[in-house]
Amino acid sequence: MKGVEARRKALALVERSGIALVGSNSGDGHPWIKAMLKMETEDLKTVWFSTNTSSKRVAQFREDPRACVYFVDFSDWMGLMLIGQVKILSDPESRQRIWREGYETYYPLGVSDPDYTVLRFSAASANYYHQIDNLTFEP
Amino acid sequence: MKGVEARRKALALVERSGIALVGSNSGDGHPWIKAMLKMETEDLKTVWFSTNTSSKRVAQFREDPRACVYFVDFSDWMGLMLIGQVKILSDPESRQRIWREGYETYYPLGVSDPDYTVLRFSAASANYYHQIDNLTFEP
Repeated sequence: MKGVEARRKALALVERSGIALVGSNSGDGHPWIKAMLKMETEDLKTVWFSTNTSSKRVAQFREDPRACVYFVDFSDWMGLMLIGQVKILSDPESRQRIWREGYETYYPLGVSDPDYTVLRFSAASANYYHQIDNLTFEP
Repeated sequence: MKGVEARRKALALVERSGIALVGSNSGDGHPWIKAMLKMETEDLKTVWFSTNTSSKRVAQFREDPRACVYFVDFSDWMGLMLIGQVKILSDPESRQRIWREGYETYYPLGVSDPDYTVLRFSAASANYYHQIDNLTFEP
């Protein structure tokens, strides 16, 4: 598997995945995992999520922004691990960008609800595997 | 959702999952995730895996045994995170227990192949969610 092929397959996996697994450090440095809806992506470099400002993950990323984002296809032994950092965003532009119809149910005050937070993950490294093929590359 | 119901649903999720996501700390304390075949489980307390002795995860768990094991059903917004520690085992009994037909392909020297390693994860805490229900309990 060459780099070009790995990148193409990894992008296809990201595009068809609605959910990503997000790895974080808890306060005591213990690894945690959470399934989150993938809201938007830019190439393999950036993944956008949204969550409650009061959530455990926001508290964890405030203390330690290091994260990994994992996309997986259980049916074909295929996965992509992106290693990077999470930025917690509350600017109006980011809030508007990730806001979706129906979010009022969770955030009654709308797009400026203080409990609505946007997370932007930036990848520094990518590892893609498919069956026994495995490649690490710059995302 | 009561504790008894969460435990019952969590156990059913574990039983029907062939693959678990394993969270580890890399050498620099960065969270990593890897999909691994779930080999055996005991209640929600213990999960057995096997891997190559030369693998990155074995090196990581040697430095920091803290781990989480995550079972997820993407189709029904359901997941279980077990928080605990990994023990790296190489005793004959554990090797024999997890050894499966066909492993000779990966470990040509058989059950005593030095590159064959058993990982036994022990959970200290469990968090199960289904839709908007979420419960943390002792596994």
